[in-house]
Amino acid sequence: MVEVDTGMDRCGVDTAQECLALARQVMELPGLRFEGITGYEGHCSLTFDNELRHERQREAMTFFTGVADLLEANGIPCKIRSAGGIATWRWTAGYPGLTEIQAGTYVVMDNYHGRMVPHFEHSLTIQASVISRQSGKVIVDAGNKSVAAPDEVTIVGHDHKVFRFDEEHGIFSAPLGSPLQVGDRVTLVPGYSPSTVNWYDAYHVVQDNVVVDIWPIIPRGPGHHGLAGLAAPAR
Amino acid sequence: MVEVDTGMDRCGVDTAQECLALARQVMELPGLRFEGITGYEGHCSLTFDNELRHERQREAMTFFTGVADLLEANGIPCKIRSAGGIATWRWTAGYPGLTEIQAGTYVVMDNYHGRMVPHFEHSLTIQASVISRQSGKVIVDAGNKSVAAPDEVTIVGHDHKVFRFDEEHGIFSAPLGSPLQVGDRVTLVPGYSPSTVNWYDAYHVVQDNVVVDIWPIIPRGPGHHGLAGLAAPAR
Repeated sequence: MVEVDTGMDRCGVDTAQECLALARQVMELPGLRFEGITGYEGHCSLTFDNELRHERQREAMTFFTGVADLLEANGIPCKIRSAGGIATWRWTAGYPGLTEIQAGTYVVMDNYHGRMVPHFEHSLTIQASVISRQSGKVIVDAGNKSVAAPDEVTIVGHDHKVFRFDEEHGIFSAPLGSPLQVGDRVTLVPGYSPSTVNWYDAYHVVQDNVVVDIWPIIPRGPGHHGLAGLAAPAR
Repeated sequence: MVEVDTGMDRCGVDTAQECLALARQVMELPGLRFEGITGYEGHCSLTFDNELRHERQREAMTFFTGVADLLEANGIPCKIRSAGGIATWRWTAGYPGLTEIQAGTYVVMDNYHGRMVPHFEHSLTIQASVISRQSGKVIVDAGNKSVAAPDEVTIVGHDHKVFRFDEEHGIFSAPLGSPLQVGDRVTLVPGYSPSTVNWYDAYHVVQDNVVVDIWPIIPRGPGHHGLAGLAAPAR
């Protein structure tokens, strides 16, 4: 796969001609096979306004499918055309000429992406405990080492705004008081799940308030099977 | 130990009288022994100006040692008086009445704390590789999932400013070019090490360019012995 920069201003070829030249080079090299192009339009995820985001997505995909067209016009089959993120998945999935959508965050969701794509449920939460009720605040034992994008963290069932997140403390404002007391367990919805999941070794899969399974978060790297690894040690 | 809030506006008792009442309660309870007070003045670490930081540190420690004085005046020995962070360690270590310093970051250091406390060497670095040299940029394969406080990340031996850090990409500006090429290995100094260390399972201890040991980062939690664990499996 050749990466095409569709607007992230990051890695990938910048023009269709560059892509054509690189695809030809790939095809000439032994042991390599050209399969297609990938052009995640992730810059659109930074645009909250729906209209403007859609406009940027269209612009990115017009360019991207144009690259595929140039390849095919030059006799290079472009089987895979992969793009699309959580914030643009519907538009990119419906765009003619795409074969694969890269959206992933929808599986777990978070508050950041939820603002742009509100129709997915939030399946990823962080379990924490209240450790202090000082000075009109609710302080929990999950800080910015436990939940990413802490400014957007919310407590399920409680309307407390984030005051500040330190490394091991999550601090919420409760100027009008709170039913939460020291020792209470709370459920946090992360601000940003793509940078939260990688801090943990395992998902605890909960169904009807019961942990029914533990899934290791293997992509963290080798040896990260955490609790799941302990439950089923290698023999 | 009773926590005293010396200015963090977080957990801990807010007044000497509250501390006295809590210490008495501790002493009356079976199975508990009152050992002293802890009052990390971490809010000072957010003040870069040396004079102002020193002023805040003095204010915090005046209050903190006053709490200990009140306890002792009431017949409660306050054996441990623990405070001090990396950004105030010298002043707090020299402050009369303290018995323990909590500074820790000096062991590894980072660019954030280095601005305030420049006299410690940086022993913690992140090994990365250059994966792209697009558009006047140097792009490495360590992003904001690999190095905390990415805005302050630097490359050892190269004067490239951070352009942007995405999850898996670190992007540096190189408008005047760079000797770095795709495949080159680079050494990154983290912006903030207290939130970087916990993302890894092991330190690779390097002496004269040779990895001489691998230390597991055990405080990450159970089962996190990473490469070190693989090297010495439980029998």
